[in-house]
Amino acid sequence: MSAVVIGHMNPDTDSIVSAIAAADLYSKRGVDAIPAAQGAPTPETAFVLDRFGVAAPRIVNDVAGQELFLVDFSDLPQAPAGMDSATVLGIVDHHKLGDVTTSSPLEAWIWPVGCTGTVIKNMYDFYGVEIPPAIAGCILCAILSDTVIFKSPTCTDADKKAVEELARIAGVDDPVALGMEMFRVKSAVDGASMTDLVFRDYKDFDMNGKKVGIGQLEVVDLAMLDDIKNGLREELARVKGEGRHSVFLLLTDIMKEGSEMLIVSDDPSVVESAFGVSCEGDTVWLPGVMSRKKQVVPNFEKAFK
Amino acid sequence: MSAVVIGHMNPDTDSIVSAIAAADLYSKRGVDAIPAAQGAPTPETAFVLDRFGVAAPRIVNDVAGQELFLVDFSDLPQAPAGMDSATVLGIVDHHKLGDVTTSSPLEAWIWPVGCTGTVIKNMYDFYGVEIPPAIAGCILCAILSDTVIFKSPTCTDADKKAVEELARIAGVDDPVALGMEMFRVKSAVDGASMTDLVFRDYKDFDMNGKKVGIGQLEVVDLAMLDDIKNGLREELARVKGEGRHSVFLLLTDIMKEGSEMLIVSDDPSVVESAFGVSCEGDTVWLPGVMSRKKQVVPNFEKAFK
Repeated sequence: MSAVVIGHMNPDTDSIVSAIAAADLYSKRGVDAIPAAQGAPTPETAFVLDRFGVAAPRIVNDVAGQELFLVDFSDLPQAPAGMDSATVLGIVDHHKLGDVTTSSPLEAWIWPVGCTGTVIKNMYDFYGVEIPPAIAGCILCAILSDTVIFKSPTCTDADKKAVEELARIAGVDDPVALGMEMFRVKSAVDGASMTDLVFRDYKDFDMNGKKVGIGQLEVVDLAMLDDIKNGLREELARVKGEGRHSVFLLLTDIMKEGSEMLIVSDDPSVVESAFGVSCEGDTVWLPGVMSRKKQVVPNFEKAFK
Repeated sequence: MSAVVIGHMNPDTDSIVSAIAAADLYSKRGVDAIPAAQGAPTPETAFVLDRFGVAAPRIVNDVAGQELFLVDFSDLPQAPAGMDSATVLGIVDHHKLGDVTTSSPLEAWIWPVGCTGTVIKNMYDFYGVEIPPAIAGCILCAILSDTVIFKSPTCTDADKKAVEELARIAGVDDPVALGMEMFRVKSAVDGASMTDLVFRDYKDFDMNGKKVGIGQLEVVDLAMLDDIKNGLREELARVKGEGRHSVFLLLTDIMKEGSEMLIVSDDPSVVESAFGVSCEGDTVWLPGVMSRKKQVVPNFEKAFK
């Protein structure tokens, strides 16, 4: 039985592309592995896969009894069902270390860089395996997506170097132009349901025993969202009603380099203690805040302690 | 303040040598780091450090408020005091993934190989940093120790390749002869107290909520221990009395390639279900069993479920 390479819930481009790339690399190292995802590609991811002619991975929501490689996460709340009886053979990630544990030694590559794709690019190099051009193009896009075209504070020199080398392999002359094209697709809200938008890039966290959801919508211009903010608020209230202490939605303006956060919480004062801002009503503008992972989650974790 | 590079409780040669080597490598990568250990070197480790003229790391038992790199472990029961307020920047390990978590992204290199030293050797190569000959010699010995001179089932081709290259760097003509010399030092029981012997290579585990201690003594001939087995049993009973469900001591004969296990347990039947052996009295011979990590801990974890 093939090992399953799978990313987190509500998969983003990095999660899906890293599953595809890691499965390719593991297979070429002699480990039978197939890519999977916990959901369908977002419009952004679909654009990327289509641009380079790569098929979307199969959707897998239960991994009971399977051998797994996890990509782009290491915490159980973001894992599929059936983890109790699954065996984790490896992890590739760029987040904080979560609560996944194993019963046997594993192979973990976890680096403090902007994107899991950057780690996988380096793994290909380390093992002397050539990156197929189509996969190189997809990894390149994943890095541009996660680092918001190098603007996010999570972006490192390793990410920039990886993009440079991947662009050469994939034959992409202007990576930044491709990134902007991708972000325009990502920004599109027409035709999407409020549920689609809230869950486009959404994660649940356990913060000191409380379930906290944080979503992020990245757009090239916040004004695009003016007409649908009330709809988003209603959807957030519905999601919170499913047993969460708080649900936050970051509306990130990648040109203005900051985020408006919509707040639905049993205790909105956590936002004030997390960000040191005075916050009236159910929304606040956070200048410079672009990274959920680096600028939002750690602050909330401290505030919830 | 320098980051502290530290291995597990009751440090073995790998734990101490890996702290020294990783601190050297992090420093050369521009991260101010100093090696530490949670205890003094064992006779084996002292032999190795002395052989290559390397100083023992300082002893550190509280890491409150410090920045840390963990080597050779990733579980909290083996961590020093003060972990709550420490920040883990990285992990290098070759064990199962434990319950250490972080609040920020980290750098983790965890490989399913025989020794943390093997991972660090590859990290030096990856970052293009030259390994000082003395440190190469120490890593070589750590690998020979952890893999029982390549006889342990945990030994991989990566470990053998690392030893070959490290021997060249360190100027060691006959690594196996050096390994045998080291194991004769390790085997010495004269003059050591029963407490010293039980804790020479001892780890506590949380098995389904029960505290289980497993020690290992590797000797070149089991007969060396005939006179002290009763003393060891008394010491094991004392250790169990400190609130443990079970304490097991593996007496591993590296020439016969198997282990006698001394058993002190509230429920000795776990040994039968773990190893499928019928076990009368407080001892059992386990042919072929040489690795606590690979052949003992996973079996007990299943048996305790």
